[in-house]
Amino acid sequence: MDGIHGLWVAVATPVTSGGVDTARLAAHADWLLGEGCDGLVLFGTTGEGTSFSARERLDAVAALLRHGIAAGRLGLGTGFPSVTDTVALTRDMLALGLRHALVLPPYFYRDAPAEGLEDAFAALLDGVADDRLRATLYHIPQVSGVTVPPAVLARLRARYGVVLAGVKDSSGEFAHFRAFRAAAPDVSVTVGSEADIGRAVAEGGAGTICGMANLVPNTVRAMFGGTQAAEDAMRAALALMQGPFVPVLKSALAAMTGDADWARTRAPLRAVEPAVGQRIAHALQTPQETLVA
Amino acid sequence: MDGIHGLWVAVATPVTSGGVDTARLAAHADWLLGEGCDGLVLFGTTGEGTSFSARERLDAVAALLRHGIAAGRLGLGTGFPSVTDTVALTRDMLALGLRHALVLPPYFYRDAPAEGLEDAFAALLDGVADDRLRATLYHIPQVSGVTVPPAVLARLRARYGVVLAGVKDSSGEFAHFRAFRAAAPDVSVTVGSEADIGRAVAEGGAGTICGMANLVPNTVRAMFGGTQAAEDAMRAALALMQGPFVPVLKSALAAMTGDADWARTRAPLRAVEPAVGQRIAHALQTPQETLVA
Repeated sequence: MDGIHGLWVAVATPVTSGGVDTARLAAHADWLLGEGCDGLVLFGTTGEGTSFSARERLDAVAALLRHGIAAGRLGLGTGFPSVTDTVALTRDMLALGLRHALVLPPYFYRDAPAEGLEDAFAALLDGVADDRLRATLYHIPQVSGVTVPPAVLARLRARYGVVLAGVKDSSGEFAHFRAFRAAAPDVSVTVGSEADIGRAVAEGGAGTICGMANLVPNTVRAMFGGTQAAEDAMRAALALMQGPFVPVLKSALAAMTGDADWARTRAPLRAVEPAVGQRIAHALQTPQETLVA
Repeated sequence: MDGIHGLWVAVATPVTSGGVDTARLAAHADWLLGEGCDGLVLFGTTGEGTSFSARERLDAVAALLRHGIAAGRLGLGTGFPSVTDTVALTRDMLALGLRHALVLPPYFYRDAPAEGLEDAFAALLDGVADDRLRATLYHIPQVSGVTVPPAVLARLRARYGVVLAGVKDSSGEFAHFRAFRAAAPDVSVTVGSEADIGRAVAEGGAGTICGMANLVPNTVRAMFGGTQAAEDAMRAALALMQGPFVPVLKSALAAMTGDADWARTRAPLRAVEPAVGQRIAHALQTPQETLVA
């Protein structure tokens, strides 16, 4: 598989009042890779990617590279509403040595036709024009308001080959995963829904890029075994995440690390009460440890 | 009123295969101002603004200024999902001499809380930190997926004064217009819905920023008189616009100007058949002329 495969983390982005907290981000990245995660996607939805400029994203990537993290283990959210911006950031990402771009469709005109979305992705791939690229299209309609139609994925793969390497299905609807697999069998299909990882891998899925790996990487890794026990543990962890996902996740990270600043978000998201994360951290402790083995 | 008032056009953006067609844009701007429009907002929704980078937008503004259009008659769509980007473009716009920024809320996280949207607009105004700014917040929930809550508008006006100059209500629901007027009586409320201009002005509205003025500026201007005849003519024109608004509008501009390249759109939008615009241009000819008087 040419696209992202295995266990990749949709990394949460720690922030100061000004910008990305690169020291805290590097420490978190070290921990995640040390726990056995295969790679890290920066500035996806969990990473509040759309709330950061291209410059802010590139600076964070550069800081992680200087810190010693291998470029091959990093991916970057590069999709803007303007293809011009997406091309520029994707090219700059390649110049830093990264190959994996996670690309939202243009997400302002939510009633754009499928052919227009294909035009936009084609304009991206033509504009970047670099064989090193491995693009993963990003299907998260319940947030972005825009789909990646399976037929568009298939046509783009036929036109561009391995440069169009993957699709991330974050719809949470397993029928969408199956539609992507059926439409484009050579494309790496990762799932965002942690509870679906086992059945996705069993049906030829490439793995996951997911947010819960920020908190419970071992619980996520156990999902690759496909057992009911692993899925039960994952669902129990997910059931703790009541409320807006990113702020709740960051509150839990604050509680687990003992570092209150982790709870900060960037506008338009708002931090939740410390008690929210403390409850989650407390509840996760025992089950997570039982899964490490 | 400090915000945009009178008849402002949400200008359609002519494009080549590469970028903005500034010569065609300047000719269109001349025609619109010659027809008596008070000002031009570039790169709003009708202008496919989100599909263009900050650099592309600024270059188009600079071209119009060089062409001789006064900065005071121009406004610019500057709202990005990232406040960092919105601050940068708004500052660059002010440096060119423009004061009117039309600002979308961050529109990726559509379930962001009202307080988070207030945080985002406050971060914009604090980040720009320039008394020359006259910001118009952009309420177009059926497209962007995000609202401008009237209470947020009122609190921001109380905090920032005339810098928070206006709101554009493009919801098409007159109850939203009334809610803005009631919540913030000192703020200039413009409407995007052409058929509502008469009643909006009668209730203290500041006027309109609208897309139909690209085609029928005189029909739009007649709406300020508040007569039933004007509203009937406007509704008849609107009824011709069947299909996706921006591509249909551009097709009509192509037919009216005899310039087929006007029909081009930028991805993810797609041009419609020339016949669509030809039908509209033909139908508009007679009624429009009767309204010029």
